Amino acid sequence: MNTGSIKGRVRAIGRELKKSGINCLIITKPANVSYATGFLGDDSWAMIINGRSFLVTDSRYTEQAMKECPVGTIIERHEPMPDAAARIIKKYKSVEHISVESSTSVAEFGQIKKALKTKIQTASGVIENIRSIKDESEIAVIKKAASIAAKALAQTVPLIKPGMTESELAGMLDFQIRKLGSMNSFETIAAFGFNASRPHHQPTSRKLGKNDTILIDFGAKYKGYCSDITRCFIIGKPNGFYQKVYEVVEKAQEAAVKKVKAGITLQEVDNAAREVIRQSDLPVYGHGTGHGFGIEIHESPFLKPEAKGVLKAGQVVTIEPGIYMPGRLGVRIEDDLLVTKTGCEILTKNCPHCPSLP
Amino acid sequence: MNTGSIKGRVRAIGRELKKSGINCLIITKPANVSYATGFLGDDSWAMIINGRSFLVTDSRYTEQAMKECPVGTIIERHEPMPDAAARIIKKYKSVEHISVESSTSVAEFGQIKKALKTKIQTASGVIENIRSIKDESEIAVIKKAASIAAKALAQTVPLIKPGMTESELAGMLDFQIRKLGSMNSFETIAAFGFNASRPHHQPTSRKLGKNDTILIDFGAKYKGYCSDITRCFIIGKPNGFYQKVYEVVEKAQEAAVKKVKAGITLQEVDNAAREVIRQSDLPVYGHGTGHGFGIEIHESPFLKPEAKGVLKAGQVVTIEPGIYMPGRLGVRIEDDLLVTKTGCEILTKNCPHCPSLP
Repeated sequence: MNTGSIKGRVRAIGRELKKSGINCLIITKPANVSYATGFLGDDSWAMIINGRSFLVTDSRYTEQAMKECPVGTIIERHEPMPDAAARIIKKYKSVEHISVESSTSVAEFGQIKKALKTKIQTASGVIENIRSIKDESEIAVIKKAASIAAKALAQTVPLIKPGMTESELAGMLDFQIRKLGSMNSFETIAAFGFNASRPHHQPTSRKLGKNDTILIDFGAKYKGYCSDITRCFIIGKPNGFYQKVYEVVEKAQEAAVKKVKAGITLQEVDNAAREVIRQSDLPVYGHGTGHGFGIEIHESPFLKPEAKGVLKAGQVVTIEPGIYMPGRLGVRIEDDLLVTKTGCEILTKNCPHCPSLP
Repeated sequence: MNTGSIKGRVRAIGRELKKSGINCLIITKPANVSYATGFLGDDSWAMIINGRSFLVTDSRYTEQAMKECPVGTIIERHEPMPDAAARIIKKYKSVEHISVESSTSVAEFGQIKKALKTKIQTASGVIENIRSIKDESEIAVIKKAASIAAKALAQTVPLIKPGMTESELAGMLDFQIRKLGSMNSFETIAAFGFNASRPHHQPTSRKLGKNDTILIDFGAKYKGYCSDITRCFIIGKPNGFYQKVYEVVEKAQEAAVKKVKAGITLQEVDNAAREVIRQSDLPVYGHGTGHGFGIEIHESPFLKPEAKGVLKAGQVVTIEPGIYMPGRLGVRIEDDLLVTKTGCEILTKNCPHCPSLP
């Protein structure tokens, strides 16, 4: 991330904290640490003290931090993390209102309280709200992550053949992702036949039949940012019922995609997809219709029946309705969208999308 | 996991809770949920109430849970997790002392308190302590995870050639792991030349030179259990200084491995490796000498200078000293060991261990 982006984020966080009268925010959630500092390693905390940023890390990460963090002070700690945080905060005598992210564990919260010997509070969603709207540099990286994922699948599809296992297919796709200079957003799901009825199936040694079906759910992580795609394929002889289900899911997805634009309620988008499936008399999926993504694979906003709020320009979301019939089949189609003032831009358009393979 | 193993674990947890007068433990840490129930999915909690076990999950995981959990009651929730937990606990009027794992977030802890409308406490390390000592079925699975990782690297080594990128090497190794029916324990680290001085380097498009060095840190996850290996290689013309450093790390590792047996202090093992490097006048590593692993890639015990306690028979640990010189080189050698009463069994013996490749 460039210096300007990180500076802008630190300023935005500082403004939010000022509104709530917080002098110091202790950031413990890894994705929020990355967002506030640019650091992509683990086991580190960040702090925003009177608008200045700090990264607290250890010797394993000092070199990486110096490379990745263009703004703020890098502290190499040699004591437990809460003690290191307290040591730095105590240097600022004017700091009165200290908050810790509410995602922090009860144990660490207790340790921070003990180390600081002062009253502290929790804050929730401060950084999550800011980072749900992506800046230009983030959108560029997410577009690249989406196009790498699409390209990796396009390069994998010609290699699919009966007899290969779910694990092999997942491995082949992951290899293409690596060759394109990227990592996985999450562990690739490759499910053959009715294994696809488990939305979070883990690849097995189940072999692909001559007449079979495939579900692949995967993503590429590029410069710390995710993409997330699901595609389904029919191998060999077309299966009439599966094709019917596929078409319903496709229509459900189209209905939700059409709704996406800044200002629409999250519920309305969610319901558009669900309604198509409801009317088909096929079972309605138990998961959300989509979710935001970025540094994390699942982040705000969440498109689900009980969601509150509206979509905003600059958010990126998945749209991924599905139909699951245990012991029979599972179909899900998932694309990545950038929300704009007038509608949306589909970031995964170039990903293969043809259900029947020879 | 078989029914007997899980029953034994639930009994062991029940016994520990009884000692502390806890009627109900709410388990929120994913690795502990897996340990207590056998469930390998995400987003689920477990509870042990009066010695009985419960898994609270949602519709995405119900089918998987029914397959993976041989013991206890599976609850499919349709409300927020803390409300679902409270609903079940309230059925047991005799439950007085409720504890939540201290790794739970402050936010969720607050939500549980609100949903239960009663006093709750935190408990730390209950399950971590039990699961640091592996039972026979766990040792069998960990041995398999270690042998898959070793085999995957053996199959990858002949494919290494100048011109390939760090990402490609990581991808090739990961593909072999998948082909052997396994997943990664963590994101594979492949670092060429001085990139290896960052212990947690992420693979880049840096190309392997004709005369170059490689560090690979990786593991296979098999049936939910990890392995963890690091190997270093010299490509082409031997580099005298690198070889000298490699030999020091090798001796440091041997010194620590020799110490490993039930009853020895964690500090003594850690210091054995560190002392060899100290005497060589090369820089001493900033990370621990090793760590336990199992369901998590890093779990109790931790072999580091400030560690307290002793090794116990049935624990599995890594031994992984290293030498890091930013801008110059990084060398680490890591093997997996099963601690026994009389010494240890090296689980990664079959992994290629020859620094110079043609």
